[in-house]
Amino acid sequence: MNIPKHVGIIPDGNRRWAQGKGMTKDRGYECGLDPGLEAYRACRDKGVEEVTFYGFTTDNTRRPSYQTEAFTKACVDAANLLINEGASFLAVGNAKSPMFPKELLPYTTRSEGKPGQIKANLLVNYGWHWDLNTLADAEKVNKNNIQENIQSFDVSRLDLIIRWGGRRRLSGFLPVQSIYADFYVVDDFWPDYKNIHMDEAFTWYKDQDVTLGG
Amino acid sequence: MNIPKHVGIIPDGNRRWAQGKGMTKDRGYECGLDPGLEAYRACRDKGVEEVTFYGFTTDNTRRPSYQTEAFTKACVDAANLLINEGASFLAVGNAKSPMFPKELLPYTTRSEGKPGQIKANLLVNYGWHWDLNTLADAEKVNKNNIQENIQSFDVSRLDLIIRWGGRRRLSGFLPVQSIYADFYVVDDFWPDYKNIHMDEAFTWYKDQDVTLGG
Repeated sequence: MNIPKHVGIIPDGNRRWAQGKGMTKDRGYECGLDPGLEAYRACRDKGVEEVTFYGFTTDNTRRPSYQTEAFTKACVDAANLLINEGASFLAVGNAKSPMFPKELLPYTTRSEGKPGQIKANLLVNYGWHWDLNTLADAEKVNKNNIQENIQSFDVSRLDLIIRWGGRRRLSGFLPVQSIYADFYVVDDFWPDYKNIHMDEAFTWYKDQDVTLGG
Repeated sequence: MNIPKHVGIIPDGNRRWAQGKGMTKDRGYECGLDPGLEAYRACRDKGVEEVTFYGFTTDNTRRPSYQTEAFTKACVDAANLLINEGASFLAVGNAKSPMFPKELLPYTTRSEGKPGQIKANLLVNYGWHWDLNTLADAEKVNKNNIQENIQSFDVSRLDLIIRWGGRRRLSGFLPVQSIYADFYVVDDFWPDYKNIHMDEAFTWYKDQDVTLGG
């Protein structure tokens, strides 16, 4: 079976889920924590080598503060769950901004994982423009060195991106690593994550004819 | 109705279509010409302001020469159809390479369109790395000036990308302009294009909640 090496996860729909349950929008994020750990474990157990979660972006920080506080806390909690699980953890985002959670500053370089665990990356205070802005400092950019000159250089090329919540867009998720990725959409909101979603995405992926543009 | 200003078209499946008809793979491209003009007219008549077609990439030029010759000829023919129609035409790709068709060299800057016509861009000998490589020459790259410093600076942000041929991936299509685009997939192969595909994509698009990452 054709297993993706690197899976990107866009855990969207937390606010719509909370509203559907009669809760305020900010309550959705905490309900996305267990799904995050489950999704990591499902990928690990399928033989995936690296998982990247879309936490929050610099664009998202313009939302009302009760929401930004809720998703920032959820990201710190998610990071702790993954670190406790033993993942080789990396936080990717603009750490020079006050919106970057200080608890995650030690993880702007990758932590060592425990045996049997895999790489887990979390985008926090991430911006696609922030990611690309170091290209201006690069000596010369060519086909083979773009990825090593962007901020997210320690995040590898994505094979499969799965987005929950029904939207069919990347929303600025790692534009360089997403270039050749296959994109699978789950209509359920992220807090309603089930392992069957992941199974279905992997089943779909194995039939894709991956050519990397050739 | 919520009309996309800029529509990207990935006209995939030409080779699979030809094989399915018992023809050699190279024969698919010429059968994608009329669909291209029809798709341009459909977008124009719906109120779209700009359409970008994915012609061929620097990666594609590694294919057997009977195929590269066929898709290069098809791109020149497609350009002539759009220019004759009166579109404001731009060819986007690495024009310093011998793989760039010399007939299209006059169109590496945009031609003037006729009244009532819209912008039409065709990616020929395009590479996402070629597109980004001028960022290394930029003085300073920030959130607001990335697009004006890439090779495809005269191609605007995409609202809707429609891919024919069933694949759910961008395959290097304008990574910067695709950041916030909604992505619609048609399972039919490109030579089987019908205006109803476009209608369905537009109907789907009008219900999307476009947030541009906010």
